[in-house]
Parts: sequence; structure tokens; C-alpha cells
Amino acid sequence: MNKKEFKGFAFVDGGVCAAQGFQANGIHCGIKANGDPDKNDLAMIYAEIPCTAAAMYTTNKVQGAPIAVTRKHLENGTAQAVIVNSVNANTCNADGIEKAEKMCQFAAEALNLKPEDIIVASTGVIGQPLPIEPIEKGVPELAKGLNHNGNTEAVHAIMTTDTQPKEVAVEFEIGGKTCRLGGMLKGSGMIHPNMATTLTFLTTDCAVSAGMLKQALKDVVTVTLNHVSVDGDTSTNDMVCVLANGKAGNQEIIKPDENFEIFKDALYAVLMNLSRMMARDGEGATKLIECVCTGAADEKTAEIVAKSVITSSLFKAAVFGEDANWGRILCAVGYAPAEFDIHQVDVSLSSPKGLIEVCKNGAGVEFSEEKAKEILSEEEILVSVSIGTGAGSAVAWGCDLTYDYVRINGDYRS
Amino acid sequence: MNKKEFKGFAFVDGGVCAAQGFQANGIHCGIKANGDPDKNDLAMIYAEIPCTAAAMYTTNKVQGAPIAVTRKHLENGTAQAVIVNSVNANTCNADGIEKAEKMCQFAAEALNLKPEDIIVASTGVIGQPLPIEPIEKGVPELAKGLNHNGNTEAVHAIMTTDTQPKEVAVEFEIGGKTCRLGGMLKGSGMIHPNMATTLTFLTTDCAVSAGMLKQALKDVVTVTLNHVSVDGDTSTNDMVCVLANGKAGNQEIIKPDENFEIFKDALYAVLMNLSRMMARDGEGATKLIECVCTGAADEKTAEIVAKSVITSSLFKAAVFGEDANWGRILCAVGYAPAEFDIHQVDVSLSSPKGLIEVCKNGAGVEFSEEKAKEILSEEEILVSVSIGTGAGSAVAWGCDLTYDYVRINGDYRS
Repeated sequence: MNKKEFKGFAFVDGGVCAAQGFQANGIHCGIKANGDPDKNDLAMIYAEIPCTAAAMYTTNKVQGAPIAVTRKHLENGTAQAVIVNSVNANTCNADGIEKAEKMCQFAAEALNLKPEDIIVASTGVIGQPLPIEPIEKGVPELAKGLNHNGNTEAVHAIMTTDTQPKEVAVEFEIGGKTCRLGGMLKGSGMIHPNMATTLTFLTTDCAVSAGMLKQALKDVVTVTLNHVSVDGDTSTNDMVCVLANGKAGNQEIIKPDENFEIFKDALYAVLMNLSRMMARDGEGATKLIECVCTGAADEKTAEIVAKSVITSSLFKAAVFGEDANWGRILCAVGYAPAEFDIHQVDVSLSSPKGLIEVCKNGAGVEFSEEKAKEILSEEEILVSVSIGTGAGSAVAWGCDLTYDYVRINGDYRS
Repeated sequence: MNKKEFKGFAFVDGGVCAAQGFQANGIHCGIKANGDPDKNDLAMIYAEIPCTAAAMYTTNKVQGAPIAVTRKHLENGTAQAVIVNSVNANTCNADGIEKAEKMCQFAAEALNLKPEDIIVASTGVIGQPLPIEPIEKGVPELAKGLNHNGNTEAVHAIMTTDTQPKEVAVEFEIGGKTCRLGGMLKGSGMIHPNMATTLTFLTTDCAVSAGMLKQALKDVVTVTLNHVSVDGDTSTNDMVCVLANGKAGNQEIIKPDENFEIFKDALYAVLMNLSRMMARDGEGATKLIECVCTGAADEKTAEIVAKSVITSSLFKAAVFGEDANWGRILCAVGYAPAEFDIHQVDVSLSSPKGLIEVCKNGAGVEFSEEKAKEILSEEEILVSVSIGTGAGSAVAWGCDLTYDYVRINGDYRS
């Protein structure tokens, strides 16, 4: 899948409320004592009818309590609402499971559902007991305020060190029926996904069976969220989930046919754009780094090389300094654990300001430092790495390493 | 091997000149146009008689030209001198091999040796042609100034972003004969060793066969230099080499006997201390982070967990901020690719100011934030991670992530 296949999609507003039959809301309930009252910390997504649902979770051995609870609730492949808080990850706490279950109970009571219909998630500091009282008090108000434009309040509630809300939605057709798929995501530190990533909530009115929803999520997350790294740290609370209510009226997708491919392309359009947004807004980041690796023997090889480049601290710092220090790119390509001939490696740097080739067949080529500075002054930098003549390619997204990353993480808890 | 076994060793001065029969020198020859004339950039180590020799090199697919030349010269297991420059890595240059060979020729002519007797190494910027003229002009002066106290000039010549010279030497006995082993090392960025690391030069007057020298180097590098990480980037020019001239008069070590173990312990004492120095002086670092993992099923598991902790950007930034954010330690333990039960994980933090337990059986325990701040205010922080009841243990060394790391690497080339 690549960008070309997006033609025909229309990007639409509305995030998790873009699809028919979904409402959302977000409020400040006060999980952090003396926290900013203007910063939402609790969000809810509500589907007016039951949905098929699928999710993927972090592969970290340490897993937040909400993940254990959600995993259980999704065993039957259905769900009807999401409750999620920021500020506190509810992870590594003795009473974590109990509190995650309580969050589901509060939501179920307010929405007249069963706790098993609720997806629960948390993000924030690890290892501090979750204050459950403000959540208990806040849920009725949160549920009461649910509406079809509530995506904005909701997306602000899941933000932690994010500087920008991250929402994308697309419209597409399946069997003559107009479908929508939208989502919201939070970054922006402890981002190095492995099988899932960060907190991402997706809703669609397309009719898809639970099994095919799971398959689509896995196929697309593998090449989008799992190709992003901000700092190499795989979070304990990563979760991506999707709810499908079938309101679009299309024939339910129950097998890997043409319609399944259209649905996956829509999912790719949403998750790829959310991935780019997440990388661009990585903690302290001033620039997005996109690395495309081509010419690999297979996709896996290309992925390993592209990820190696976007995770190199030295290259990330060079991009921050707008320094075309391509030797660091080649160094990162060289230590990537994959098979290829380093003497066939070509590297170029580009941005809206132009393109320069910096390395050909593994050796430096002369280039204008002035031009390089100009290219690197942009906010989105593309690094193209060709490693041979194979058909394998992959793209990965990262960000520069800045003073602000150190500032933010040198004193995160206070 | 651990610290207890060091009793009986005496640390001595002299670095690479500590052992009998070795001379060294370092000069400023001017590889960088308009470089600081007080900063040495070219070093030489000279053994008065031929030595057995062994080396290990980076596993990066991109390898500096000097590595290819040295590898060839060491095929016969002997060498008699080292020439090394800083400022320029002589890597990814079309004429790199030719220039590395020239460096050996210049040294051989000045010392009346054969080029094949010379070990050559370079460190600095990747992908810029090496100015060979200043080296050619400088070598006669460099060789003329060789002396038994030249280790200080030599160690300053290999420094790049290092803020401190790094030298260690020990004295030990083998079969009633007093032997010495000393070395110098450079850091301090692009440090994430894999099978070898950075530039490290060792000399000894102990008599050891080339085969046993190679074996000892491999055994000890695996648990010292390969357990250090500054920034996760495995350099293209890493090399560690050892020269043994046999002047101590001990019976030559030719098999894995008791004397071999003594020699390896001496090598461990030198390389472990150089490793700690390298981590402490990592680019921009203000603190050394030492992580000891115990209770693992085997050493490999302990190594993976300890390395995961010291390479976590988030934890490194927290240490810089003197913030006891132990959730990030547990997160890094959790994503370490190894088998163990996360519910058996205990974590404590200590320094000369005291010790606090922060996590027991995978969950947080209450501790005094004030005490934690006091402990983290020190320059050497020990993180102890117990992951079970097994006998496997390992130690790894890293440093904090600071504004200065970003500053240094945002504009390294200029």
C-alpha cells in the first residue's frame, strides 16, 4: 500500500464522530490535584448501537491494568463505548485492575450498558495510584454531554505532552454505500510501537465482522503505527481499538475480498496520517523525519533499515541542528540488523525546498552545503535510502531530538 | 568475574606506557584546517620489540577504511606499532584504503618497520576525505618524540568530544613475574558497542600467545565494552587492540590455565574501568548510570535487561532531571526482549548518599521523594534490578541524556 492508492478517498472532519452513529465527549474531572481546569482528562466515545470491535495492545511485559480489563471485554469481539483518562497510566498499582473495572462500571451505569461492553484505557505517569473519585464524579456529566461533535473535547482529553490534537477521518464507498472511518490518537513520548502503539481510537459505520476487523487492524498497524518511533521506549499502555457499527448499510465484510481491501486502504489512510502527526508532534520535536527505504530484498529488510535511520539519536540531533551529516545516516543503515550490500547504498535528502543526493554506492558525493541547509530548514524531511535492486520497500516516521525532549522528560512527574 | 576478584591488583600510572618496552607520543599535525593547535590529533604507540597482537572491530556493515587495513595487518597475529588520528574517521571515502595504507607506510618508514607491522585507526567525521598531507608531515616529528611517558600526549590525541582523557593500568603477577597491562580509550558519542567498541589501545609486557590474546580479548570485551551505551549508535570505526611484548619474562600463556585467568582478570580490571569512564564521560553526560541485573535465569537474560535500562531515553532524561521516575525503569525492563516474570521484579536506586527501594514484585512501594532526590544528586547512580531467583547477573553502564548531548550533536561537523 502506498499513497497513490489514496486517490478516491475524501478526508472529512469529525474524527471519531465522523462516522454515523458515534458520539463523544471530554471533560476535566480533576485526576491531577491542582491540575489545569481547562485541560480535559477524561473522554468517552459512545456508539448508539452495538459494534463489532477489535484491538491491539503493547507487547511490553509490564502492561497497564486497563489493558487486562479491555482484553477480557473484547473476547467476544463486540463493544459499545470507550472510557479513557489521561494524567495517570494506572500501571504497576496493586489496585489497578479493580479501578479499571470500576471505570467500566461507572460508564456502563451512565450509558445503560453492561461493563463488558466498555473499552477502558489510561495514559500518564506509571506507578502512582489512580484517583478514582474524580472519575466517579465526572462520568455522569461526561455521558450527559455526549454529542455528534464531541470529538474535539474527547481528543483534548487524551493528550499528555502532545502539543496538537490528532484526528483524521476519511469517506469511501463500499458496494455503492458511503462509509466513513475516523480516529483520534495521542503521542508523544514513550513511543516505539511494537504490535500496537500509543492510544488510538477508531470508529467506522462500515459493516465489518469482528474477525475481519481484527485482521485489517493487524495488517495496517504493522505498516503504520508500528513504523513510528519518538524515543525508542515501548509504552506499557499502548492500545489501538476500532469500533464498527454497520450503519453505512453496506453488505458486511466477512472475508478478504475486494471490499476488505477498500476498507484496509481507508484504515491505512487514517492510521498513516495519524502516525505522521504523532511523529511530527513527538516530545520536543521541531521536525518530522520520514525515511523511505527501497530496493530491499523484502519488506522486512526495508522496514529494519528505515526504522534504524529514524531511531538514531545522532541523526535525530543532526536534523535538529539542520546539519546534513549523512555519515550518521549511513552509520545507522550499517548497523541495521539486515542483509544487504552496503556498497549499493544511495542516500538522498529532500523537502519542499528540493532534493540533494549525499551518498552513492556507499561513498559520499559532493553536494552544496548551502542547498542542504535550505532543504533541512523545512519541517518535514524525507530521507530516501536505496539499498539495492529488490522490490521491497517501507516507510518509517520519526522526529528530531531536541533540547525540549530533554526538558520535558527531565522533569515529567512534577 | 566481578569486582571482588580485583583484590591483589595494583592500579598504576602510565596508561599504554605502563608496561615495559612501550613508548608513545601525540602531536597536533593539523588535520582540521584552523583547528585548535593545542589539541593533539595524531598519536603513535611503539613497541621496542615485536608483539603478539589481537583486535576486535565494529560489527557495523559500514566499516572505516583503517579497519580493513588493520584486519589484514593482524592476520599473522603480530604487530609493533599503532598510528591513529582523530578529527576524521576516514570512512565512506573512495580513497580511504589508500590513505590508511599510506598512514602505515609513513609510520613504518619513521620506525624502520614494515607497513604490515602497523595497526592503523581513525576517529571523527564520517564521509569527508582525509587530509593526508598533515599526517605525512607530522609522522617524523611524532616518531622522534616517542618516549616512556608519552601516554599523556597520546591519549589527548585520540579524544574527540571526550572531556577527560581515559587511561587505566594495572600490575599483577604471573608465575612470580610482575606484569603490567595498561590502556587508553576514547568515547564519547556513537557509542553502542557490538563485539568491539570505540577506539581502545592496550599494551602489556605479559607473554601471551596471539591465540590466547585473542580469546582473552573476546571474553572480556563481551562483558565490559559491549555493556556500555551512550546513544544506541554503533560506530563504523570501533576498534580495540592489544599488544603483548613478553618483556615481563613470565612463561608464555599458551592455554586456558590459571595464568590465563589471572591475565583475563587484569584485562577485566582495565577494560571495566575504561568502560565506566567512557559512560561517565558520554557526550553531554552529567552522571554515570550503572545497572546491575541479578536473579536472571542466565547471564544473557541479565545482560539484555541491564542494557535495556541504561539505553532508555526516557529514563536517561529522568536521571538528568534527578527525578526518581522508576516507572520508566520498569517500562524498560518490561520491553527488554527476554524471558522472566515481571511480577518478580524488584528495583532499587542507590548512590553514595544511600539506597531506596522503589518497586517490589512489579508494583510501586512508597518511598521518600526527598531521599530519592538526595540519592540522585550524586554523579554515579546505581540501579539494581532483581528479576527472579536465578544465578544469572550482569552489569551495564550508561549515562544521562542532557541538553548538552543535543547541543554537541546538533552541530558536530562545524
